[in-house]
Amino acid sequence: VGPFDHPWLSGLFADPEMAAIWSAQTQLSHMCAFEAAWSRSGHLAGLWAGQEGTAAAKAIEGFTLDPKDLAEGTAHDGLCVPSLVRFLKAVAGDAVHRGATSQDVIDTALALCIAATLDLVDRRLAALADELAALEGRFGDAPLMGRTRMQAALPIHVRDRVRIWRSPLSEHRHRIQQLRPRVARIQIGGAAGDRAALGNNAQQMCDAVAAELGLESAAHSWHATRDSIAEFANLLSLISGSLGKFGQDVALMAQQGVDEISLSCGGGSSAMPHKQNPILAELLVSLARYNAVQLSGMHQALVHEQERSGAAWTLEWMLLPQMAQATGRALVAGEQLVGQINAMGTDH
Amino acid sequence: VGPFDHPWLSGLFADPEMAAIWSAQTQLSHMCAFEAAWSRSGHLAGLWAGQEGTAAAKAIEGFTLDPKDLAEGTAHDGLCVPSLVRFLKAVAGDAVHRGATSQDVIDTALALCIAATLDLVDRRLAALADELAALEGRFGDAPLMGRTRMQAALPIHVRDRVRIWRSPLSEHRHRIQQLRPRVARIQIGGAAGDRAALGNNAQQMCDAVAAELGLESAAHSWHATRDSIAEFANLLSLISGSLGKFGQDVALMAQQGVDEISLSCGGGSSAMPHKQNPILAELLVSLARYNAVQLSGMHQALVHEQERSGAAWTLEWMLLPQMAQATGRALVAGEQLVGQINAMGTDH
Amino acid sequence: VGPFDHPWLSGLFADPEMAAIWSAQTQLSHMCAFEAAWSRSGHLAGLWAGQEGTAAAKAIEGFTLDPKDLAEGTAHDGLCVPSLVRFLKAVAGDAVHRGATSQDVIDTALALCIAATLDLVDRRLAALADELAALEGRFGDAPLMGRTRMQAALPIHVRDRVRIWRSPLSEHRHRIQQLRPRVARIQIGGAAGDRAALGNNAQQMCDAVAAELGLESAAHSWHATRDSIAEFANLLSLISGSLGKFGQDVALMAQQGVDEISLSCGGGSSAMPHKQNPILAELLVSLARYNAVQLSGMHQALVHEQERSGAAWTLEWMLLPQMAQATGRALVAGEQLVGQINAMGTDH
Amino acid sequence: VGPFDHPWLSGLFADPEMAAIWSAQTQLSHMCAFEAAWSRSGHLAGLWAGQEGTAAAKAIEGFTLDPKDLAEGTAHDGLCVPSLVRFLKAVAGDAVHRGATSQDVIDTALALCIAATLDLVDRRLAALADELAALEGRFGDAPLMGRTRMQAALPIHVRDRVRIWRSPLSEHRHRIQQLRPRVARIQIGGAAGDRAALGNNAQQMCDAVAAELGLESAAHSWHATRDSIAEFANLLSLISGSLGKFGQDVALMAQQGVDEISLSCGGGSSAMPHKQNPILAELLVSLARYNAVQLSGMHQALVHEQERSGAAWTLEWMLLPQMAQATGRALVAGEQLVGQINAMGTDH
Repeated sequence: VGPFDHPWLSGLFADPEMAAIWSAQTQLSHMCAFEAAWSRSGHLAGLWAGQEGTAAAKAIEGFTLDPKDLAEGTAHDGLCVPSLVRFLKAVAGDAVHRGATSQDVIDTALALCIAATLDLVDRRLAALADELAALEGRFGDAPLMGRTRMQAALPIHVRDRVRIWRSPLSEHRHRIQQLRPRVARIQIGGAAGDRAALGNNAQQMCDAVAAELGLESAAHSWHATRDSIAEFANLLSLISGSLGKFGQDVALMAQQGVDEISLSCGGGSSAMPHKQNPILAELLVSLARYNAVQLSGMHQALVHEQERSGAAWTLEWMLLPQMAQATGRALVAGEQLVGQINAMGTDH
Repeated sequence: VGPFDHPWLSGLFADPEMAAIWSAQTQLSHMCAFEAAWSRSGHLAGLWAGQEGTAAAKAIEGFTLDPKDLAEGTAHDGLCVPSLVRFLKAVAGDAVHRGATSQDVIDTALALCIAATLDLVDRRLAALADELAALEGRFGDAPLMGRTRMQAALPIHVRDRVRIWRSPLSEHRHRIQQLRPRVARIQIGGAAGDRAALGNNAQQMCDAVAAELGLESAAHSWHATRDSIAEFANLLSLISGSLGKFGQDVALMAQQGVDEISLSCGGGSSAMPHKQNPILAELLVSLARYNAVQLSGMHQALVHEQERSGAAWTLEWMLLPQMAQATGRALVAGEQLVGQINAMGTDH
Repeated sequence: VGPFDHPWLSGLFADPEMAAIWSAQTQLSHMCAFEAAWSRSGHLAGLWAGQEGTAAAKAIEGFTLDPKDLAEGTAHDGLCVPSLVRFLKAVAGDAVHRGATSQDVIDTALALCIAATLDLVDRRLAALADELAALEGRFGDAPLMGRTRMQAALPIHVRDRVRIWRSPLSEHRHRIQQLRPRVARIQIGGAAGDRAALGNNAQQMCDAVAAELGLESAAHSWHATRDSIAEFANLLSLISGSLGKFGQDVALMAQQGVDEISLSCGGGSSAMPHKQNPILAELLVSLARYNAVQLSGMHQALVHEQERSGAAWTLEWMLLPQMAQATGRALVAGEQLVGQINAMGTDH
Repeated sequence: VGPFDHPWLSGLFADPEMAAIWSAQTQLSHMCAFEAAWSRSGHLAGLWAGQEGTAAAKAIEGFTLDPKDLAEGTAHDGLCVPSLVRFLKAVAGDAVHRGATSQDVIDTALALCIAATLDLVDRRLAALADELAALEGRFGDAPLMGRTRMQAALPIHVRDRVRIWRSPLSEHRHRIQQLRPRVARIQIGGAAGDRAALGNNAQQMCDAVAAELGLESAAHSWHATRDSIAEFANLLSLISGSLGKFGQDVALMAQQGVDEISLSCGGGSSAMPHKQNPILAELLVSLARYNAVQLSGMHQALVHEQERSGAAWTLEWMLLPQMAQATGRALVAGEQLVGQINAMGTDH
């Protein structure tokens, strides 16, 4: 069991809001939403009559499935969509999925997860920036020893260090704005990625499906060009990295002898009940290093052969949801840690 | 939810035997086994009377706990042991844990997981080697085009390529033998790692605890020296890497136009029912690249500050169990893939 | 000797234009340009009289130094600036460097290297896109077998695959535009990063130095917030990753039996004179995987403690110039590879 | 220019002894030594008459070449051997290289570099262990605050912390012993890796070549099974990781307020002449993290397709020599840092 879902480690690592965004249940809902939108819009490309598509869409929207029912098919096919489509066709008839391919379904569901992640992360970045501003308001005038290369340098003020923690947050929010149209967008390519089955009205149909799902449309599929997905992973790791820097600083400030910060609610020790460990500060470092590691794999997956690479795409599945979990948890832990700060500065 | 536990992705990624070795339930059992052995042996270091320790050990052995009950304590303390010790003391009294520390408990439980992993992996390596030998027996004489730098080089035989797949497996088994004493060993250091609370008979007590748990003893703690753990991670990735090479070769051989292998049971496509995708071959590549990525983090965790680094140790928890899962799955998938081979060679 | 400078491996890996941008000589010139601009603008912050600063700036601009003369100082101080400042003061007097710190000098020189890199990369991306468009013009109508999961899927056309190679290039150019103001900017913080020595006119002075160097100004230092540097590294790896996908596809197309591409000028073998190895295609894959690896370290370096981390900053020096070299070489190799394509398509 | 060869950064990063082991000149010598041994032993496999081979070997041994002369050929062929063989045949005639392949030459040269690296590293590990033992002798009885999770835990003694630094060194020496026969061994496979050109006496010839070069023989080629090379990379990173832990501890001990260590010869600052920066301690952390990053790429290169992967093998060339440099430098810097320690302990 991974750290984010483990019976007790989840106490440290879990972020329920982010977990909900990436849960199997949500992914399944997104896939069904794609299929419903596909059925409803298919008449635009002459895949079936409008009435037939609408009926199928309604049947899909009324259908529920236990995610576990897709496991056997996934074991056989390497992905869940062939099995899902069989279930959907059984209830919704033939005006289903034709002209689409598994990757259209899974990547569009991914785009919906990413869009929701960007919303959540953006909101939390704003909130954390506010709380750091308030922290600066409380303790900013206090003197602090500036430290470079782990050595005392020259006196600064608490505000200078808090400013360092704050300043990347608005940059990250700016990055989210710039990135969003590249990732919150529809994936439609069909079997070989060229939309051949959709004929001359392919773009019109793609626009309609995108609009229904609240995503950007796309002029062509991005089955095999994963640069925006890797860029999203980079953003996740930039954010957890900025928070790792915050955590590292707090852990250093909390050392006895340095005594530049006072924290409430540190963690206890089984052998030394007197200790107050800066658990959240250390956790932020761990999460930052974790994402810095995972990011490498997302970039390895850019070497995505031909029209669809099973190997590279599968690697993304193993890495990206966990990166989102780590970033989500880092943002929550960052806010919690700010809330634990009772005092800052050399003479507090 | 991580790929190994996901409702449907687990159909592709899960290895139930390996999952059992690293499950929360098993880890909890190992931690309780450590605590029972500790209680039973504590009289050797004068921690308590023998009778008192025996009674506590029996109480611990009779105790059961829902792993989830440790989540709240983990959230507070950054690890589960303070909470676990409170539960154990409530049923087993005071002859519990004294002189030990959280890391002794968690790392010894880890050593037991690693020992079981080495057993399982070794057994599977042997079985896979046998099956590849049988494969060579069936198809070894068939001609094959040797390919270097993705180009036809000179004719070889199927046995030459199968030999490449086989030869690392016995090397890996040799590595397991060499590594085992460095990782299947007790962790005992106490609060600050120096066994100070155990007095002059510290080593005697450590030997007894190790013997009871079936682990190597250790002359001192390895709280902050994680080289053997990183070496174990390296072994996991070497093995999945060798299998990734096998998978990559099979996927290349299965290409239309190359046609050097015939597989049964390939995966289906939602858009192209005629396709037979070499799912397991691609999966082996994904698992190899996954572990190659994770390994980097296990080596980052070697920079483990002072007597115990919360940040570095927590990072290990996030990475190592998943690496074991990936290697376990790769070994099973490797065997399954051998079983799917119907024919090999240029003229099959 | 690293691969980019090695006596014979450089035949494969070197990109002289990119090497010039990141050469020691260029870095030294940038550092001296910073120091000259600093001397010239220092009167704005009352560091010295305008005349004195102008004279010092001219002396610095007329000064030349063998880069090797900074080695001894670097060995002692961990960086070259203290030594460089001593040299400069010897020729330019006292109106030098005061109020600045080593990191201001080195990071501003880095920003100038990055700005030149973005220019070069942008120009090459445009050129490569043009050449791929021309390639599409020549062979786009030819039939090609679409391949997914390493298996024949459905027939497509050459244009579909070339489109996959082309489409990320314009996205990368867009990313360059978005990123440039975050990285092509001045670094000024002074000893502890707070510009304390520059007094009330600090921003005015920073703006002047930035303008003289052709960089964006900055409202505060970014000594310890390395997110934009990591984002630049991400961009480098996105680009080499896109080219790695192109290379992987070409290597697969060039296989005997697949025969979907014809290349001139492949590499020879010492044992098989008849072979034509797709050297550049493989090289693109190697460069992509190389950068995907290095990127992880650039993100580890986000955990940058306090006002300046020697450890994290030093790690950047080890990684980033090499990533730029790899991306530069990938772009050149990509263009060379397009030029080697004689024919494409199933029936060429 | 990479950090190890840079005009001034080399002051910080260079290790001349290790650089000599991996220099182009040494690699070229090793390649020529292989070719001479090949010529001398070729009569055993009937490749040519003994006298002819001996004459060719002598001619090769008397031949010198500027490494740069191999650059053009490397650019064309992707590796230097075809070009080298042409040079050698011009002076030594036809009893040269026949039956061998480029990878035999390059990998055997690599094995010789690795063997020399293991010797140097082993010697330095022993010396460093001795110096740490002496350090323990000088300061071991001094009290020190044990620190866990960055917090004061319980008092220990300096010897306890020095023991943590020392203990992995002997483990690494043990690992070298275990690994050596797997890496210091001949590579002989011929064009397609099966030694087909050597006939029935292939093993006899391989044994003779190995004996002449002072390497282990091998029962078959390891062209495409790179597990032992990746294991060597792992060892390099384990060692630099252990030293990174030492460096991190020293940097933490040297903080003002903690004051547990006194160092001579720290590095100076351009802005703060009073500072004494723990340059070498930070460098050890950088080198550890650098190698932890590179290792991931060496494991990616395990996915080595078919009989020879240009892409995977080329990736090794980019990574492994630099890892050896980093480990070499870390060992020297570790010894230097021990030599800078004037006092240790809480009350020094």
